[in-house]
Amino acid sequence: MLAEAVEIPSVSGDAAHRPEVFRMADWLQARLEKLEVKVTRVELPKHMCDGQEIPLPPVLFGQYGDDPAKKTILTYGHMDVQPAQLSDGWDTDPFKLVHDEKTGRMYGRGSTDDKGPLLGWLAVIEAHRATNTPMPVNVKMVFEGMEESGSEGLEAVVRKEASGFLKDVDAVCISDNYWLGTKKPCLTYGLRGLSYWKVTIDGPAADLHSGVFGGTVHEPMTDLFAVFSKLVTGKGEILIPGINDLIAPLTDEERKRYEVMDFNLAEYGQAVGGDITMHDDGVNTLMGRMRFPSLSIHGIEGAFSAPGSKTVIPAKVSGKFSLRLVPNLTPQNVEPLVRKYLESEFAKLGSKNRMTAEALHGGQAWLSDPEHWNFKAAAKATKNVYGVEPDYTREGGSIPVTLVFEDALKKSVMLLPMGRADDGAHSINEKLDRTNYIQGIKLMAEYLEQVPSFAQ
Amino acid sequence: MLAEAVEIPSVSGDAAHRPEVFRMADWLQARLEKLEVKVTRVELPKHMCDGQEIPLPPVLFGQYGDDPAKKTILTYGHMDVQPAQLSDGWDTDPFKLVHDEKTGRMYGRGSTDDKGPLLGWLAVIEAHRATNTPMPVNVKMVFEGMEESGSEGLEAVVRKEASGFLKDVDAVCISDNYWLGTKKPCLTYGLRGLSYWKVTIDGPAADLHSGVFGGTVHEPMTDLFAVFSKLVTGKGEILIPGINDLIAPLTDEERKRYEVMDFNLAEYGQAVGGDITMHDDGVNTLMGRMRFPSLSIHGIEGAFSAPGSKTVIPAKVSGKFSLRLVPNLTPQNVEPLVRKYLESEFAKLGSKNRMTAEALHGGQAWLSDPEHWNFKAAAKATKNVYGVEPDYTREGGSIPVTLVFEDALKKSVMLLPMGRADDGAHSINEKLDRTNYIQGIKLMAEYLEQVPSFAQ
Repeated sequence: MLAEAVEIPSVSGDAAHRPEVFRMADWLQARLEKLEVKVTRVELPKHMCDGQEIPLPPVLFGQYGDDPAKKTILTYGHMDVQPAQLSDGWDTDPFKLVHDEKTGRMYGRGSTDDKGPLLGWLAVIEAHRATNTPMPVNVKMVFEGMEESGSEGLEAVVRKEASGFLKDVDAVCISDNYWLGTKKPCLTYGLRGLSYWKVTIDGPAADLHSGVFGGTVHEPMTDLFAVFSKLVTGKGEILIPGINDLIAPLTDEERKRYEVMDFNLAEYGQAVGGDITMHDDGVNTLMGRMRFPSLSIHGIEGAFSAPGSKTVIPAKVSGKFSLRLVPNLTPQNVEPLVRKYLESEFAKLGSKNRMTAEALHGGQAWLSDPEHWNFKAAAKATKNVYGVEPDYTREGGSIPVTLVFEDALKKSVMLLPMGRADDGAHSINEKLDRTNYIQGIKLMAEYLEQVPSFAQ
Repeated sequence: MLAEAVEIPSVSGDAAHRPEVFRMADWLQARLEKLEVKVTRVELPKHMCDGQEIPLPPVLFGQYGDDPAKKTILTYGHMDVQPAQLSDGWDTDPFKLVHDEKTGRMYGRGSTDDKGPLLGWLAVIEAHRATNTPMPVNVKMVFEGMEESGSEGLEAVVRKEASGFLKDVDAVCISDNYWLGTKKPCLTYGLRGLSYWKVTIDGPAADLHSGVFGGTVHEPMTDLFAVFSKLVTGKGEILIPGINDLIAPLTDEERKRYEVMDFNLAEYGQAVGGDITMHDDGVNTLMGRMRFPSLSIHGIEGAFSAPGSKTVIPAKVSGKFSLRLVPNLTPQNVEPLVRKYLESEFAKLGSKNRMTAEALHGGQAWLSDPEHWNFKAAAKATKNVYGVEPDYTREGGSIPVTLVFEDALKKSVMLLPMGRADDGAHSINEKLDRTNYIQGIKLMAEYLEQVPSFAQ
């Protein structure tokens, strides 16, 4: 089944491939209907992609079981994939599932992100049907085709159906992320938010020659470097007053979660390609990624960026940086702190240039309660399938759909990954280990099985 | 004569136009020979241009008069021009000399840079011939066709002929720059040098996602901003220890030269398109440009430079900055100071990233003696033609050929501009005022006339 799905190159980010996303939706709908899943196909309006107006792929709603005596679990997955070409450096055809018998790896675009996990839910239903076992819960499904392109169109559908199709959902389970390492399963209960800034310093009317004007005018680049050098230290300490005071305090219980995690600092250093880790130990590294904010400077628009040696004084430059947010930092409470600090640091320079600071976009952090029955059911299932307590992880990046579900449905949302950290989602030679696929399907089934015992 | 020259689009920086530079050389050679100037055509080897191997245009040597009782003045000019197209925003065809009778401006690419000044020397000879007046000096000429493309090939020719064709030269006069303003003529006796730096900070093996890795690794951009913010203040003070100690002290006599210059700070601010001047007065502004070093940050290679909001931690970034040098700063004595400071500032960060600092290229500052008879003759000539003492200026940028002549011939080199600050060399609507052309030719003739009285 996964092999057939991988063969459909459902790349959502490329207008020329859009029909393949539709073909993937048709294929999935047929698969679901064969399992007697009740499918509602939500058609979406056209949108602009690559400069042309083309239709958005549909969102597929699925429903299997409607027993009012049972809990209802909402599962989510996406049908679309990242672009891939053999010439990118793949060892095998990216749109052919290749099973390496020696390593047990199944290579192919979408194997782990997210066709494998999505089809996991179908496999669970199929197994129950084959053995004539009644499902322990009602299962609802939201399968979209635009996740790799910002989940366009999905949020409106979810918000609208919060009082419709999704009304009776008791908890949400999303399988679209990865273990922290390669050995130990995890449940994910948090994601960092984002506050992205563009700071423009505007000086002369046009670029100037540094020989002719250097030493006579206030240079926007000098000002930008002065201001941005005050944002964060080389050790990652954020210097914007007020930010650190807003961070939710670390509890002992939470600290313990980091201490038991499957994490090796040396391996992490190797994975980034050099010994450049900021902390000396695993626990602080994990917390640096998961539970503390960070500030990164991304680049400058308008400066000289080509190879060579141009003697220019750029007239107008826009520096970009962003803050990763954790509770209780929000784009809203961070914005005035950042703006005030930027303005005061710029004022200190006594420059005659003009500075404007724009908060380009923001996203809330997400933090779920890992003590909720939704997580307890998954933890017990992990113990039963893998024989270990799962790690409780938070992710450094964002998965916007998580917040949309939580905010629209006001129910517990959990991320239950199937694949491993080294699966190479978005990269070349994306793979899913066959054991992760099989054990992952068992985990999904066992999770649903455990829900009735834990649900309140 | 100038109209014919402007009509030849002798753009040296574009391989497709190279035959036009040869056509310009042929045209000029014929003109010179008509005036009985003895021409030696120095053919140069092929070079790479736009990815193809094409011939370099010749250097033309000219000689008019060889009386051993007379002084010999070397004049220099260039036949090639910057690119220009009507579509760049020109009001008239750039390769047609258009004389606006109302303003007296003659528009056309090369009018002021440098076909007008070059042809000025021919006009001087022509005038003497027409009136049967003997020339007061022997005139030698070096006219090249690659000035706008780094004067490729010229240096070797000058150094070789220092003991040959150029052996008996007593002084050099170059007309290839501009008045400081629009009203008062000047003699130029200095140019700043250059020390251009590329500082690379290398961290992870590949770009990282700031959500996933922010807060766990030393980020090259953070390090680069920290180090570069320590180079120069917003007020233009260079913070590299030792640099300021090397600057030749300002003498009272020199200070007076700045005080009398034709310079209006408000106009200067308007010319750069905003009130962003660093100094409150004209004298300090002039000295900031002419007699003090400056440090400009030009940009970053390898960082995010496009519009939009990419959440990347760039893996390897190269910041570029340069110092403009004045006596007694040289690329050689500045290099260890800059390198040591960069290394010590980087070491303070305690970063695990790697930093490498490269001095990409450098150029010596040039400072001539404005009390030399060469300048005294030109000053007297200016007084006679324009009725005023000339300003004595230094330029912020560099004109490499100046240094080559001085170093190879060990004779006084003077820059004697014909055009005004607003001529728009290298820009659209380049022009030469008709009065500047006519008075400029008179000034050249009068300068040669004065040489015998002042020469020692």
